Amino acid sequence: MSSHDIPDIVISRLPVYLRALERLAQEGHEVTSSHELGKRLGISSAQIRKDLSHFGGFGKQGTGYRIGFLREQLRQVLKVERDWEIALIGAGDLGSAVARYRGFAERGFHVTSVFDSSPDKIGRQIGSFKIQPITDAPQVIRERGIKIAMIAVPAEKAQEVADMIIAAGVKAILNYAPINLNVPPDVHVQYIDPVLHLQRMTYYLV
Amino acid sequence: MSSHDIPDIVISRLPVYLRALERLAQEGHEVTSSHELGKRLGISSAQIRKDLSHFGGFGKQGTGYRIGFLREQLRQVLKVERDWEIALIGAGDLGSAVARYRGFAERGFHVTSVFDSSPDKIGRQIGSFKIQPITDAPQVIRERGIKIAMIAVPAEKAQEVADMIIAAGVKAILNYAPINLNVPPDVHVQYIDPVLHLQRMTYYLV
Repeated sequence: MSSHDIPDIVISRLPVYLRALERLAQEGHEVTSSHELGKRLGISSAQIRKDLSHFGGFGKQGTGYRIGFLREQLRQVLKVERDWEIALIGAGDLGSAVARYRGFAERGFHVTSVFDSSPDKIGRQIGSFKIQPITDAPQVIRERGIKIAMIAVPAEKAQEVADMIIAAGVKAILNYAPINLNVPPDVHVQYIDPVLHLQRMTYYLV
Repeated sequence: MSSHDIPDIVISRLPVYLRALERLAQEGHEVTSSHELGKRLGISSAQIRKDLSHFGGFGKQGTGYRIGFLREQLRQVLKVERDWEIALIGAGDLGSAVARYRGFAERGFHVTSVFDSSPDKIGRQIGSFKIQPITDAPQVIRERGIKIAMIAVPAEKAQEVADMIIAAGVKAILNYAPINLNVPPDVHVQYIDPVLHLQRMTYYLV
């Protein structure tokens, strides 16, 4: 199925559904419904049925969804039934925390190389990684065919780093630097800036 | 201005505009336009003008926006011209990283207390914080009038922690636990799960 068939907004909700299904499975459930999922996620059951209908044949009206089956279907659609290799650029406070975060590997995303430009960081260990010179990143990314990178460098360096790794073949970037990146149309970027999330909420506080 | 006047989707974009304006100011610019902002952010200039028009009088057609003025206006609208105190619940790998992340205080969000339930963590220092018993969280939150909390506990504990801190007066939660929370309508929750962002992108990879 080509990415053009499904609106990005639908794709953006699938990982949330998958996470809820994995949780339900952990809790020992075998079947769920759009209503139960909706209650857990604060999304209308109609929305959930509509989203899942893009992929067809996941649930039968009335009988609900078989969790194991739906989970595997979503994993395949999202291409997370396989493991992915990730290059991490930036080994400062934030990069080090990201490199140590166990939640990535547990869910199939493996940071396999860490790069930094600072001479006093290069060669040091972060957990199981030896920090490599950022100038080696393009070669490593090409040789290993790495498609996903995380950027955790200062804002003023992020665009330059993005250009470098995109030229080496990276197609998906998780950007922790607090700045928007300009990338070609075939490259996907997601942003993590916790301060933006806080600022979305303070508006509502009195 | 009441929160009902402005759609949440507009509010969600204001911190992105604010971040871009702060960057432009750092770079020494004094004036910008909806076109320049749009180019930097990958948002249409029409959308930006429409969003900012909710607040009125920010820019004049043709002459653009005065960055310093617009930045201050957005800070006031978002209530981030003041500093905010944050309680952090959970001092594991992730919580420790969050507690050490400098980006919060630099932008007016000050983690002033850290709580954990594990006896071998309580009393230990994270950076400048002494980890306090989670059972003390409600009293500390009430006494200090803390309205914002970050949750970095395991998924299976997150709802229970949320219920506890909401009962103590928390109205905004940044949730790092990989699970959706059920909260009252007057409580706002934002989620940070980097794996969900990665899974949104793998769909598009070949």
